[in-house]
Amino acid sequence: MRVLIVGANGKVARHSLRHFKDSDKHEAVAMIRKEEQASELKELGAAETVIADLEGDISHAFNGIDAVIFAAGSGPHTGADKTVLIDLWGAIKTIDEAKKQGVNRFVMISAINVDDPEEAPEKMRHYVVAKKLADDHLKASGLDYTIVRPGPLTNDDPTGQLLIEEKIGHRNGEITRGDVGHVVFETVDKENTHHKVFEILNGEALLEEAIQHV
Amino acid sequence: MRVLIVGANGKVARHSLRHFKDSDKHEAVAMIRKEEQASELKELGAAETVIADLEGDISHAFNGIDAVIFAAGSGPHTGADKTVLIDLWGAIKTIDEAKKQGVNRFVMISAINVDDPEEAPEKMRHYVVAKKLADDHLKASGLDYTIVRPGPLTNDDPTGQLLIEEKIGHRNGEITRGDVGHVVFETVDKENTHHKVFEILNGEALLEEAIQHV
Repeated sequence: MRVLIVGANGKVARHSLRHFKDSDKHEAVAMIRKEEQASELKELGAAETVIADLEGDISHAFNGIDAVIFAAGSGPHTGADKTVLIDLWGAIKTIDEAKKQGVNRFVMISAINVDDPEEAPEKMRHYVVAKKLADDHLKASGLDYTIVRPGPLTNDDPTGQLLIEEKIGHRNGEITRGDVGHVVFETVDKENTHHKVFEILNGEALLEEAIQHV
Repeated sequence: MRVLIVGANGKVARHSLRHFKDSDKHEAVAMIRKEEQASELKELGAAETVIADLEGDISHAFNGIDAVIFAAGSGPHTGADKTVLIDLWGAIKTIDEAKKQGVNRFVMISAINVDDPEEAPEKMRHYVVAKKLADDHLKASGLDYTIVRPGPLTNDDPTGQLLIEEKIGHRNGEITRGDVGHVVFETVDKENTHHKVFEILNGEALLEEAIQHV
């Protein structure tokens, strides 16, 4: 599979690239905004890069693509306007473009506990609305989606071990960005994950096995 | 008809109340956040008021209601987070609650040119995304909707005269808040406006006739 990684310059996406580098089945096309990001991402494991901005035209990025991993996010340091434009509208644009171009496989990196904005802390609520509505759009798209919802992220070394459930809820835990990158790589070609939403934390199960039994 | 006006304390909604006051067919239930707004809105024309906050539980507000006019908006002086929570999430909540409670008639006050966020000025784009997605949710809801999209609003005296088209686009013009309030009042019981989206500016046609021929 040739997999388009949207938001490839982000931390989780960078971790996923290492797995593509080691794979003889799949290759990653890293969608980036700036040419100067290209060499580093190729070194990490991107087979190719494509320059496209989620706030502009992205249609050329889907050429020859079999699957999409949506890893973009405006991050915690921008305003709510960027959350709307990247996390929500950028996701909707990507989903619609995938559908238009017949790219049926779509893995979304979402977040834990975004089903109910009302129960989110007030400061987070607009972010939760954005993530929920992006996920809802994907579910209604007809694409073969998987929605991966990690809990609180850390930069610790990847553990290769998961707790994975449809709804983990508010139990304590966290997950390394490296493990999230690994999960989306493992998920992209697994048909048993189609049309599923699952939450993940680091846990007891072996990551690769856990994905196979979702 | 008993019509729930969501965001009844806003300027456009206040103008619509005058028309309910003069009507012997319809009465307005003004949904407000604070008890102290009640007496003024009753004076303007609300038959009743109900206290409910779009950021909390609104289910009790639909009791005995036949139609909804959604006139809420966070306004130009709040952050994009409130645009998400009121204009988008508040609208979705209201639409879903109307559907749940069998209130099939829904008039949305939207805005001109919100079909394509990409063509909006950058500063407005998050607002356009919010309005567009709220409208999209309403269109997909199965309710008997009408989406009214006024151009730039003024506080001038109402004219009673309209330009009304499915797509006015970027032609110059503006419309008084009083006329928008009048349009939504006229629209609420007109079956010819069901499942329609129209843009409005002040123009040449008599307002009441123009609504009948949409």
